[in-house]
Amino acid sequence: MDEVIRKIKMGIPVLVYDSKDREGETDIVVASKFVTHDIIKLMRKDGGGLICTTMTYEISQKLGIPFMVDILQKSGYEIFKYLYPNDIPYDEKSSFSITINHRKTFTGIPDNDRSLTIREFANFIERLNVLDEKSARVEFGKLFRSPGHVHLLISSKDLLKSRRGHTELSTALMIMSGLTPSATIVEMLGDDGRSLPYQKAKNYAIEHNYPFVEGSEIIEWWEKWSE
Amino acid sequence: MDEVIRKIKMGIPVLVYDSKDREGETDIVVASKFVTHDIIKLMRKDGGGLICTTMTYEISQKLGIPFMVDILQKSGYEIFKYLYPNDIPYDEKSSFSITINHRKTFTGIPDNDRSLTIREFANFIERLNVLDEKSARVEFGKLFRSPGHVHLLISSKDLLKSRRGHTELSTALMIMSGLTPSATIVEMLGDDGRSLPYQKAKNYAIEHNYPFVEGSEIIEWWEKWSE
Repeated sequence: MDEVIRKIKMGIPVLVYDSKDREGETDIVVASKFVTHDIIKLMRKDGGGLICTTMTYEISQKLGIPFMVDILQKSGYEIFKYLYPNDIPYDEKSSFSITINHRKTFTGIPDNDRSLTIREFANFIERLNVLDEKSARVEFGKLFRSPGHVHLLISSKDLLKSRRGHTELSTALMIMSGLTPSATIVEMLGDDGRSLPYQKAKNYAIEHNYPFVEGSEIIEWWEKWSE
Repeated sequence: MDEVIRKIKMGIPVLVYDSKDREGETDIVVASKFVTHDIIKLMRKDGGGLICTTMTYEISQKLGIPFMVDILQKSGYEIFKYLYPNDIPYDEKSSFSITINHRKTFTGIPDNDRSLTIREFANFIERLNVLDEKSARVEFGKLFRSPGHVHLLISSKDLLKSRRGHTELSTALMIMSGLTPSATIVEMLGDDGRSLPYQKAKNYAIEHNYPFVEGSEIIEWWEKWSE
């Protein structure tokens, strides 16, 4: 655990496999505050999934940022009754929230743009303590626009108790590392149309000297750490 | 033009550069109905941006699928007043709509899952004519859930007249090819943190024997074709 945390604090990617009973996917995880354009490049080339940035439930509450599923339902458009995601095979609820771009980005998608959005999001969160709710929201809107090209994910309320997805696992790692509680994550995909198999993800980790952690380990660490 | 259309109808990728006065980006464009897991792999490896699927404005109207910016504003959450995208540098309005997964996907993100979602979306659109509005919406909801991992884009109302982004350019190409009016597109990114430069995108096209088309050419074809 100490070695994993030491690397997270250096901005080194950590590979997180949730569990074979859930998605069975490995995500590349980096502390959002250390995301550079080279990290985004690595994530899209060696990961290949959706690049997403997490936050705690508490932060989402302070900023008034809802889950996407709640936005769709509250928007009043009839179609979202039919599109309701009541059959997600691996969990009860998706952690998807909104997409954002920093207002200083151009199109929002090149590695420079996405890393700017993510780093500025982490910077903003870091100084959230000194802002009251109203000014936090106004400030957030001065810095970012939505929709954009970076997906925000919201961790479940009691973190690893009710949901144990990559959103919660990676956010818990940031908290245990004493960093801003936001991780940037991407799924590792294989060349055969499927997720990258467990063993291949592990080999990749060894090859690049990145830590490889399983969900069950993080949950164990978290339970001890929370005491 | 005939050569480009011939290739589109074969499911071969076409590279579309919008213009130097707009995003200045090249997208890989494939007819949605021909998207396989290998096409998704190619898009994420050689493109690297967000993989998005377009539709015409008319289809979005029939299905009652709104632009994301309108969903956010209508949801009633205060934060979206502040996050309003009133300063997009390259256009007036983003074409982002919702994200979807086909209900038969598992996590939704591996190449098999994303290509299934996209092909089934194209298949569904193809038989939209024989459905009335109500049954189209119910049927759509039986097939797909939202949020998901494939971004839908809505073309502007009078297609290339009011907006000339990759959404409109690629959708117009599909219509001129006599195919289902949905393209799947992704931005080509460079290794230096920026969009892939024009010349490099052109070289990639030559290397792989893919057509390379500029926005101005598509607009010209479209104007003649529309007469």
